[in-house]
Amino acid sequence: MTAYAEISAHFSRVAALSNAIGILQWDNDAMMPKGAADTRAESMALLHVLRHGMVTELRIGDWLSEAEADTTLGAWERANLREIRRSWTVETALPSDLVEASSKAVSACEMRWRKARADSDFAGLLPFLAEVLKLQREIGRAKGERLGLSPYDALLNDYEPGGRAQRIDGLFDDLAAFLPGFTQEALAAQARRPAAPSLEGPFPIEAQRRLGLKMMAALGYDFERGRLDISTHPFCGGADNDVRITTRYDEADFTKALMGVLHETGHALYEQGRPQAWLSQPVSHARGMSLHESQSLLIEMQACRSHEFMSFAAPLMREAFGASGAAWDAGALWRNATRVQPGFIRVDADEVTYPAHVILRYRLEQALIADAMPLSELPSAWNEQMRQLLGITPPDDRLGCLQDVHWPSGGWGYFPTYTLGAMTAAQIFDAACRTQPEILPAIGRGDFSPLLDWLRTNIHSQGSLYETDELLTRATGRPLDAGVFKAHLRRRYVGEG
Amino acid sequence: MTAYAEISAHFSRVAALSNAIGILQWDNDAMMPKGAADTRAESMALLHVLRHGMVTELRIGDWLSEAEADTTLGAWERANLREIRRSWTVETALPSDLVEASSKAVSACEMRWRKARADSDFAGLLPFLAEVLKLQREIGRAKGERLGLSPYDALLNDYEPGGRAQRIDGLFDDLAAFLPGFTQEALAAQARRPAAPSLEGPFPIEAQRRLGLKMMAALGYDFERGRLDISTHPFCGGADNDVRITTRYDEADFTKALMGVLHETGHALYEQGRPQAWLSQPVSHARGMSLHESQSLLIEMQACRSHEFMSFAAPLMREAFGASGAAWDAGALWRNATRVQPGFIRVDADEVTYPAHVILRYRLEQALIADAMPLSELPSAWNEQMRQLLGITPPDDRLGCLQDVHWPSGGWGYFPTYTLGAMTAAQIFDAACRTQPEILPAIGRGDFSPLLDWLRTNIHSQGSLYETDELLTRATGRPLDAGVFKAHLRRRYVGEG
Repeated sequence: MTAYAEISAHFSRVAALSNAIGILQWDNDAMMPKGAADTRAESMALLHVLRHGMVTELRIGDWLSEAEADTTLGAWERANLREIRRSWTVETALPSDLVEASSKAVSACEMRWRKARADSDFAGLLPFLAEVLKLQREIGRAKGERLGLSPYDALLNDYEPGGRAQRIDGLFDDLAAFLPGFTQEALAAQARRPAAPSLEGPFPIEAQRRLGLKMMAALGYDFERGRLDISTHPFCGGADNDVRITTRYDEADFTKALMGVLHETGHALYEQGRPQAWLSQPVSHARGMSLHESQSLLIEMQACRSHEFMSFAAPLMREAFGASGAAWDAGALWRNATRVQPGFIRVDADEVTYPAHVILRYRLEQALIADAMPLSELPSAWNEQMRQLLGITPPDDRLGCLQDVHWPSGGWGYFPTYTLGAMTAAQIFDAACRTQPEILPAIGRGDFSPLLDWLRTNIHSQGSLYETDELLTRATGRPLDAGVFKAHLRRRYVGEG
Repeated sequence: MTAYAEISAHFSRVAALSNAIGILQWDNDAMMPKGAADTRAESMALLHVLRHGMVTELRIGDWLSEAEADTTLGAWERANLREIRRSWTVETALPSDLVEASSKAVSACEMRWRKARADSDFAGLLPFLAEVLKLQREIGRAKGERLGLSPYDALLNDYEPGGRAQRIDGLFDDLAAFLPGFTQEALAAQARRPAAPSLEGPFPIEAQRRLGLKMMAALGYDFERGRLDISTHPFCGGADNDVRITTRYDEADFTKALMGVLHETGHALYEQGRPQAWLSQPVSHARGMSLHESQSLLIEMQACRSHEFMSFAAPLMREAFGASGAAWDAGALWRNATRVQPGFIRVDADEVTYPAHVILRYRLEQALIADAMPLSELPSAWNEQMRQLLGITPPDDRLGCLQDVHWPSGGWGYFPTYTLGAMTAAQIFDAACRTQPEILPAIGRGDFSPLLDWLRTNIHSQGSLYETDELLTRATGRPLDAGVFKAHLRRRYVGEG
C-alpha cells in the first residue's frame, strides 16, 4: 500500500469512530434519560480518548511526509493531506489526559447547565463552568504554542480554519458601530408600516411537527439519511449519511420552531450534500463553521424570510393550523417574520439584532480565555454589554449568560462564526441569485431546486477542497466583506436599494 | 496498583465501550434512518473490534493469574475474576478479523432481513444469512476447540454459561412429548368455558403508549434510567443505568403491545436491579439469558396473566380506551389473556404453544450449525416441524422462517433460553409466592412492591455472583426442572391442582 492509501484507510476508521461519537452525542442531547448522565460521560470520554489516540498516532506523521512527496496525487488527495496535516498538527499538541479531563468536565457541566438554566442559578453552574474554562485555556495554550497563535486564536482555528481574532475584531467593531443606529432606523421604518396582527394559538405540537417536516421535504432534505427530533437546544448532528436535526416547540408561537427547523435544515443540506466519494475522509468535511452557519442562515434568513417564500408558505401554514384571517396572508406573515425587536435570547433574535448577541459573547469569551476577567463576573459583564449594545438588561441569568449550551459544552471560540456566517450567507445568496435569477421566483412556487442545485455545485460538493477565502472567491467573486450583508439589511428593513 | 485493581479499572473501560455499543445498537433498531445502514455498520464493526481488542489483551491473562492467587479478595471479587476468566478464555479463541467479518455480515443481513420479511423473500435473504451462518460456524468451532465443546454448545455457552445441548435435549424432548397432547386438553377445556368476547378497536397508538407507561410505572420501572420506544422487533437494550425497551403497536389489538411492554419491563427490571456497586464489572451482569428470560416471563406470564393482575388492570384498560361492556370485565380480560390458539408467530404465541416454536428453532439451528442441513432447505424444514409440533403450516415465509431477527443478527444458540426461561420463571414465581404470600394479593391492588422486593433480593441484586444452578437453588431450593412449569400450565389451562 502507498502511504496515501494507508492514511486514507486509517481516516476511514477515524470516521467510523467519529460517526459513533456523533450519534451518541445526538442521543445525549435528544434521547438520553437523565439518570444515565454519568454512565454516558464515561463512554464519551473513552471514545474521545480512543479517537484522540487514532488521530495522533506517530505513523501518521511518517505517512504524511511520504504522501506529501507523492507527485501522482490529484487535487482532492492533496487537499485531503492538507486537512489531515492541519488536524494532526493541532491534535498532537494535546496530551491525552487533557482530552479526557475536558470531555468529562464538559459532560458534567452540560448536565448541570440544564438544571442551572431552568433555575437561573449561575452560582450552581460556576464551579463546573470554571473547570471547563480552565481546561479550554490549557487546550488553547497547548495548541497555540504549536501553531504560533494566541490561545483564543488557537481555539477559534478549530472551528474556523485560518480565522484570526484580529480580522474578526475589525469586522465586528464595524458592525458594533453600524448596528445600534441602524436598529433605530429599522424600528422607525417598522413603526411606519402597518403592524403585523399577532398569530393566535395554541398551535398543537403535532401540527407544528408536520408543517416542519413538509418544509424540510420542500427544501430537499433527505429523510432516508436523517431525522427530526426534539432537544432543549436545537442542533444539527449525527453522522455521515445520518444527518439529524432537532427543534423545540412552543405551543404559543409556531414560528420559533418552524424557523428553527428551516435553520437546521440549512445545516443539514450542507452535510447531506458533502461529496459522497470522499465521505470518509477529512477533505469531505464542511469548510468551517462560518461556512456552515452561512448555509443555515442562507436558508432561514435569506431564502425563507423573503416575500417569495411567504407566498408559498402562507397557505400551508393556514392549512396546518386550520387558520384564516388577516394575520395569515403572505404580507402579514412576512412582516411577522421580519419584525425587529431587541430581546434577551440569541436564538429568538431577529437578523438585525442578532449580531449584537454574538459580538457580546465574542468579547466576553476572549476576555475569559485571556484570564482578563474573573468568571464570577460573567453575569454582570454580560448584562452591562447587553445594555450597551441593545439597550436592554436581562432580569435574570436564565435570560442572560445561562441561555446557551456552547460554553458549558466546551465550544469556546465558536460564537463569532454565527455572525461571520450571516455575512457569508448574504454574500453567497446574492451571488447565487445574480447567476441564477430563477432562484427566488421558484421559491415562490415552493421549488427550491434551483437554489439547492446552485449550493450543491458551488458550496456543498466542494467539501474542504479549498481554503475558506478561495471557496468564497470562487463562488462569489471575492473574499468575505460586510458590504452585501449591510446592503441586505438596508433593503429589507429600511427599504433602501 | 494490585493486579485486581488493574483488571477492575480495565473492565470499567470495557463497560464504557460496551455501553456505547449498546446505545448505538438501540439506535440502529429504534431510530436510525435506513440510508445510514452502511455507515453504521462501519461504526459498529470498528467498536466491536476495539472491544474485542480490549477484552483479549495479553496482560489480562497475567493479571488474572496474579489476582486469582490473591487470598485477600472477597466473594464478589473472586466471582468477578471467574467471570472475566470465562469470557477471556472464549474471546481469545477468536481472531479479530473473524469478529469484524461477523459484525459486518450481521449488519448487512439484519438490514436485508427487514425487507425480506416484509416481502416474504427468503431467496433474497439467503446469501446474507448464509454468510452469517458460515461465520457463526467458524466462531462456534474456534470457541469449541478452546473449551472442549461442540460448536453448538460453544455458541450456547455465550448466552447460557454452563448450558449444554445434551441437558436441553432431555428437557425439550420431554416437553415436545407432553405439549401436543396437553395443548389438545387445554383447547378442550377452553371450549367448555364461555368464550371471551372480542375487544373491539381501533385502539389509538398514543392511548396504548400511555397505558404501557402506566403499567411500567406500576411495576417499578425507573424512567430516570430508561425509555420506551418503537421498533420492528421489541427488545430490551441500551446501557448501564440506561435500560431502554421497545414495543410495536397494532391499532386493532392493544393486548399485543401491552403484553410486550410487560415482558420487556421484566427484562428491564432485572437490568435496573443489577448491583450498583459492581455495575461496571462483569460480576454485575445478569446471570445468563435463561435467567433473563425468566424475569420477563415471570412478569408477563406468571404475574400479569393472573386473575389478580386483571382485577387491577381492567379498570385502567377501560379508562385508557373509553371502553365498557362485558368484554372488559376482569374475568373476560383474563380469558382473553390466557386464550390458547396455535399460530404461526412466536412472539404472538400463548404460553402453552410457545415452547413448540422454540423447540423447532432449537432443533433447526443445531442442524444448521452442524452443517447437517442445507440452509436453502430451511423454509421447508421449518414448515414440516410446524406441522408436526403444532399441526399448522405457514402460508409464506414471512409467517415462517423469516419472522425473527435472531438468526440474521447472529444470535445462534439463543433460542432455547426462551423456554428454559419459561420453566425458570414458573419455578421462581412459585418459590416467591410461597415465601411471600402477599405477592399475588398485592398485585390485585396494583402494588408490585412485594414481588419486586423479593426479586431484587433473590435474583437481581445477585448479578453473576453464583453460577446458574446455585442461584436457582438458593432462590427456589433446587436446580431447574420442568415440574413447576407443567403444574402451572395444568392449573391455569385445565384447572388441575
